[in-house]
Amino acid sequence: MTTPLNELTATEIVAAINAGRTTCEAVARACLERITAREPQVQAWQYLNPDQVIEQARALDQSGRRGPLTGVPIGVKDIIDTCDMPTEYGSPIYEGHQPSSDAACVALSRKAGGIVMGKTVTTEFANVHPGKTRNPLDPARTPGGSSSGSGAAVGDYMVPLAIGTQTTGSTTRPASFCGVVGYRPTWGDLRTARVMESSGSLDTLGILARSIEDIALYRDVLLGVEPVPIPDNVPAPRIGFCRTHVWPRLEPATQKLLEDAAQRLARAGATVEEVTLPADFEGLEAAHRWISGFEFARNFTWEIENRWGELSETLRNGRLKDGLACSYEDYASMRELVARCRHLLAPIIGNYDILLAASAAGEAPLGLNSTVHPWVYMIWTTMHVPSVTLPVFKGPHGMPIGAQLIARRSDDRRLFAAARWVYQRLAS
Amino acid sequence: MTTPLNELTATEIVAAINAGRTTCEAVARACLERITAREPQVQAWQYLNPDQVIEQARALDQSGRRGPLTGVPIGVKDIIDTCDMPTEYGSPIYEGHQPSSDAACVALSRKAGGIVMGKTVTTEFANVHPGKTRNPLDPARTPGGSSSGSGAAVGDYMVPLAIGTQTTGSTTRPASFCGVVGYRPTWGDLRTARVMESSGSLDTLGILARSIEDIALYRDVLLGVEPVPIPDNVPAPRIGFCRTHVWPRLEPATQKLLEDAAQRLARAGATVEEVTLPADFEGLEAAHRWISGFEFARNFTWEIENRWGELSETLRNGRLKDGLACSYEDYASMRELVARCRHLLAPIIGNYDILLAASAAGEAPLGLNSTVHPWVYMIWTTMHVPSVTLPVFKGPHGMPIGAQLIARRSDDRRLFAAARWVYQRLAS
Repeated sequence: MTTPLNELTATEIVAAINAGRTTCEAVARACLERITAREPQVQAWQYLNPDQVIEQARALDQSGRRGPLTGVPIGVKDIIDTCDMPTEYGSPIYEGHQPSSDAACVALSRKAGGIVMGKTVTTEFANVHPGKTRNPLDPARTPGGSSSGSGAAVGDYMVPLAIGTQTTGSTTRPASFCGVVGYRPTWGDLRTARVMESSGSLDTLGILARSIEDIALYRDVLLGVEPVPIPDNVPAPRIGFCRTHVWPRLEPATQKLLEDAAQRLARAGATVEEVTLPADFEGLEAAHRWISGFEFARNFTWEIENRWGELSETLRNGRLKDGLACSYEDYASMRELVARCRHLLAPIIGNYDILLAASAAGEAPLGLNSTVHPWVYMIWTTMHVPSVTLPVFKGPHGMPIGAQLIARRSDDRRLFAAARWVYQRLAS
Repeated sequence: MTTPLNELTATEIVAAINAGRTTCEAVARACLERITAREPQVQAWQYLNPDQVIEQARALDQSGRRGPLTGVPIGVKDIIDTCDMPTEYGSPIYEGHQPSSDAACVALSRKAGGIVMGKTVTTEFANVHPGKTRNPLDPARTPGGSSSGSGAAVGDYMVPLAIGTQTTGSTTRPASFCGVVGYRPTWGDLRTARVMESSGSLDTLGILARSIEDIALYRDVLLGVEPVPIPDNVPAPRIGFCRTHVWPRLEPATQKLLEDAAQRLARAGATVEEVTLPADFEGLEAAHRWISGFEFARNFTWEIENRWGELSETLRNGRLKDGLACSYEDYASMRELVARCRHLLAPIIGNYDILLAASAAGEAPLGLNSTVHPWVYMIWTTMHVPSVTLPVFKGPHGMPIGAQLIARRSDDRRLFAAARWVYQRLAS
């Protein structure tokens, strides 16, 4: 029995197309069929035009052009500009808005042979106010956000890859809730040109996929370099198990899953040690809140001044209120705290290949509030370190929970190698 | 004899309007008249519609709304989005391109009562290929770039304020060449949302003005905070005179002007000491080149893939060629060097209120090559420190040369106070 085309990973699709076992069009059609069947429940797509997808796929088949992502359908979060599809940033203010060129990440994806499947649902301006998307594993539950549609579309086998973004936990969280692999790169590595800026000092792209090999492949494409596969036979990693000060707020089942995982990895040959972060790190929750608020509120001055009535109540009374109330002195002092913590983290993380941490407080909760438990993510996002979330746990209701792995800045390749080692030991 | 309205500084305009001595419309008309008279020679404007300017001014007069920049005409570099004026990024690819909203900095300017006068000429994508602008003090010479139109418009009394950007020396250089005050903020302070990204890890906004008080005022507006004037009676600053390793490449006349200035400041009461930077800093020229190239080349993937023929030869064989040839490993290792140097600089600069350095190799050269001598700027831009360029020198041909003052990160207010002290001693 062969795997349906829409369930292949990106790496498998490229191999199948290169070997002549399938075509770009066949893959695109399989994904479109899945979407037709499932979109009424999942609601992952803000914009999707099947004709445009087939047209891209046929053009690729006819040209015979081959690249590292040839024929791979990709979902693009709708805060990322596309030259041939509207980009609405999750806001009625931008209904029908049509950019004139592609964001850097979209152009790099197309250059590699990727097919832009459509635009995936985002919360309003990648902030808190949720979109329409449901968790594909349980429509009564949130898919997590703000990259809600990207997480749900990959989790539901509509596309093998999707681009998201992250300012707090916007990739890690939907990855954990939808049971897919999520990756937040080293801050600054993957260009965000023509991606809506939420809070520039924290924003990164994010990748959602169904395998760590696909993450590694797509990261190289988005870096604009020749892809280098994850090396085989890496030694057992040195792992720092890092509960952080948020530990007591995790659900007990999540605590147990993480503790068991640490033990299993140790039994499998990894060096596992408990790592305690200095007390300064407890200030990072507040730092994230004020830094992101300060920047966000200024970025959206045009909307505040001209389209106030079309902003959600959630946004007006949340991040905008915070941000407009924050003084520069507070902002700058929070930024200093963050810089100090980055400095403190470097030697700690330097003792390990990866840190193991929570990627969520628990399973996706009931309801559509998609940006729950921001405190799980704030520490790591402010640290600018790369992170991979692996779908290796099941919670009390049978919903997925991810394990988050974290590495040193610019050490994303080592992270991937260690993540594959961990995945092979835990996913069973 | 009163100063013509178009020659007032922003601070003076606001005071005159608030006191009922003039109107927004009268100021706008005075600036428009200056532009009508001089634009054929200077060519500072990419887009200017007098009706739109008068309309904004009348609306402000009629509303009676008062803000910290009420009635101040502002030039906006044409890589910065405006909702009501085209934004062409200095490239034929974007001829007539009309954004749907304002960049954060434009919206903050309008919120403060500023009037967007028009879009000022930029080099192609704020890179090297020059625009049409001439030096207002000598049309045979370059105004400097890439914020060429912003520097020329302020220097020629067409507007009191202009926004520029800087990735290498794009604000500092036109300030020096056009004889105006230039300011590059602490990296990350002033939001660049909806400003074209050149190289995100280096890009900042820039401000061009004719007084340090205007710089301080406009910086607070762009920070989105209540303006705080520069305090009176600041003590004589502690100054580190920093020749850097580029010293032998400065023109002898510039060397002499800087040395004389250091002596005059010491005689006026400042503590002045020579500061030598560690040898690592000599690597920052190469680091800037590869980092900016790597990022730029990826940011413009859409243009490279779809509009190659409309890119200048200069761009194709310059930054794009560099950037496409740069590996991630080289990029990351250059980034590490920069991080190390930032770390080395902090305690050095911490001994002083400001550093004094060159803002140009010499006067604006003959010809329209507007991005000359990038090596003068690379060190300081990579360091993410704030910088003010003051028009205090005259070169051998009577053209202006600036003195550059530099302070610690986030210490922009201290920089302004010290810059005023220095200006009062040197500008005579």
